[in-house]
Amino acid sequence: MNIAIMGFGVVGSGVAELIEKNHANITKRSMQQSLEIKYILDLREFPDSPFRDKIIHDFNQILNDDSVAVVVETMGGLHPAFEFVSALLQAGKSVVTSNKELVAAKGYELLTIAREKNVNFLFEASVGGGIPIIRPISQCLAANEINEIAGILNGTTNFILTKMITENMEFDAALKMAQELGYAEKDPTADVDGFDACRKICILASLCFGHHVYPDSVPTEGIRKISLRDVAYAADAGAVIKLLGVARKTESDKICIFVSPCLVQKSSQLASVDDVFNAILVRGDAIGDVVFYGRGAGKWPTASAVVADVIDCAKHLGKRKVLDWDVPVEGEIADISEIPFAFYVRGALPAGLSAEAAANAVGAEKILQIPNAPANEVALLTKKQTETALRASLAQAGFAPDSILRVTEY
Amino acid sequence: MNIAIMGFGVVGSGVAELIEKNHANITKRSMQQSLEIKYILDLREFPDSPFRDKIIHDFNQILNDDSVAVVVETMGGLHPAFEFVSALLQAGKSVVTSNKELVAAKGYELLTIAREKNVNFLFEASVGGGIPIIRPISQCLAANEINEIAGILNGTTNFILTKMITENMEFDAALKMAQELGYAEKDPTADVDGFDACRKICILASLCFGHHVYPDSVPTEGIRKISLRDVAYAADAGAVIKLLGVARKTESDKICIFVSPCLVQKSSQLASVDDVFNAILVRGDAIGDVVFYGRGAGKWPTASAVVADVIDCAKHLGKRKVLDWDVPVEGEIADISEIPFAFYVRGALPAGLSAEAAANAVGAEKILQIPNAPANEVALLTKKQTETALRASLAQAGFAPDSILRVTEY
Repeated sequence: MNIAIMGFGVVGSGVAELIEKNHANITKRSMQQSLEIKYILDLREFPDSPFRDKIIHDFNQILNDDSVAVVVETMGGLHPAFEFVSALLQAGKSVVTSNKELVAAKGYELLTIAREKNVNFLFEASVGGGIPIIRPISQCLAANEINEIAGILNGTTNFILTKMITENMEFDAALKMAQELGYAEKDPTADVDGFDACRKICILASLCFGHHVYPDSVPTEGIRKISLRDVAYAADAGAVIKLLGVARKTESDKICIFVSPCLVQKSSQLASVDDVFNAILVRGDAIGDVVFYGRGAGKWPTASAVVADVIDCAKHLGKRKVLDWDVPVEGEIADISEIPFAFYVRGALPAGLSAEAAANAVGAEKILQIPNAPANEVALLTKKQTETALRASLAQAGFAPDSILRVTEY
Repeated sequence: MNIAIMGFGVVGSGVAELIEKNHANITKRSMQQSLEIKYILDLREFPDSPFRDKIIHDFNQILNDDSVAVVVETMGGLHPAFEFVSALLQAGKSVVTSNKELVAAKGYELLTIAREKNVNFLFEASVGGGIPIIRPISQCLAANEINEIAGILNGTTNFILTKMITENMEFDAALKMAQELGYAEKDPTADVDGFDACRKICILASLCFGHHVYPDSVPTEGIRKISLRDVAYAADAGAVIKLLGVARKTESDKICIFVSPCLVQKSSQLASVDDVFNAILVRGDAIGDVVFYGRGAGKWPTASAVVADVIDCAKHLGKRKVLDWDVPVEGEIADISEIPFAFYVRGALPAGLSAEAAANAVGAEKILQIPNAPANEVALLTKKQTETALRASLAQAGFAPDSILRVTEY
């Protein structure tokens, strides 16, 4: 079976090399279809690559070649990836992508074309890198109603937070180290401000709850404001700070979804996920909690997920996988400020307000203690309440905290 | 699509109830095929069950009904499960089972019949209860060569060890509590002595390495001999004791496989798997380490896995899933005593042998300390070496330890 790869960067070259390396077993697992790379589309030449003879620069060569049944999109970005993938699906080819931006922004449209054309559009690599998550949710947990997903979905921020927690390193220093190690981009915005995690939780929410959830509907907060004092107070609360993407069905059948740093109890399976690793917790009505852990990025893990999807396409030529979701539902996203959570609140007390009075004002369950805290600072763990109620109590007490974080229950 | 359930115990009734409860979504995920339970085979009557009208006592009713395409086997035990499942596959019906004893003992034979008859024999629920593991290995990690699997595969023993570790409870008391809570059988042998974990690691090894591995070829040791002093010494080593099933490809392409209590570093993802939870670590050449965590037993988690397999059968009627392995290979199982590991060694020193001399004799890296240890006792962490070499050194030093445990590297 002929395949084409669009984008010969880190992931695309990994896909090509992995197909070569494990060719015999991959053929066996593809129902004895041998996967042959016919074209690799890239703007550049790769004169030193063993795949140099396959490099092409004209997308139409792939589009118009009927012998190419499956195309891998590892270009990244929205354009021209969206136009290319649309055209390929329209032409009756199955497409596999690792491009989370594409799936989060255009998943519904592309799945619709795939359905109409009876081909497959698969994207296991778009969330959690190599961690099996899309297929387990859509197949292994198919007997469940899924109520909640919570994940450490971004390796860069998890690396930075791990350095802050375990080595007492300041955010700026940890970011610099992540950049030096190649874990963070020169412009780290997409990772550090939560946009990457946001795309991934949108894909998971769309899959679990059945309607497309767009990134711009998701309250998203990154980790820039987390200080070493927050990390220390969290430790006193028996917790660690992790950047989570969370999506949950509310009692009124809406979707509560957000990306933000949260306090996670140390006993949680998510608390021990360190460095660039990712983990995703899925809560189903029959299964309870399951957690999937592994490398969320990198050449080989991501290529592993892409090639698994290619094998699946090879096995299902002319037959659809059940992987689909519907058009977004107006008003489906709940107002996050009206959903009850326990909160962590930290800030400088105004003159005349004692720590105890502040604690009473917000219904605190615990006043957290760290050595060498500023004299007028208080950090509290509150009872479960809405953010609206919390902010009203804070305003009434005249307390304007620097940090408000949600506390998770898993 | 008509299905039948054989065995209306905890899991079988869970399967029936789950299919009813989530019927709309299950139908959607089965490519719009509605799953209808036509027969439930059991020796007993269930006059108070909503499924009472479906109860039958004659296996041949299922076997001879051409309208039944998929049969669920939740009877347990080898006989008559093996005869029933063989006959059903021969008759061209797909079979889904949660019966690890059946798959571990007869997997190759049953998969062979399934292959010949172009039907499916699926067993996601046989390992890790509801945790997706069989399908992720065979599909999501299909691009990988899998080098190693290590799992906490038995919830009963993990519950007992957790009580010993976190509450300083003696083995006998923890076992009694597990029995009272329904986590352990009246005769706890299959769990406590490692036989249940052994069946599961055999299924995983067969799947990952491609040849049937039989339980009687696997060195298997349970947790009866673990004492609270071992737990305390392990803590001093920065580790916890977990009952692991391990299977690994050796450098000479043999399979190193065993079930035994091991020291697992606290930083490991497996160390924080507590109570009745299970977790399975899979190491692939592309993906690196991935870990799957969740409830390894119980009515709903196990039913969740069974129903996911039934949905898969419904989607693949007349088409085979790639889930298969070959006949065992003579000499494929490596001699465990010739594979190097680091070891934990604990025992009473003979007169005239100092702790330091014992440590030197076995190439120890650390002498472990606990409060209130018996005066003549020593506990050591050794360098990596074969068990054969370790036992020779111990014999030469005249030191006969009470406890020798492997130390893992993940």
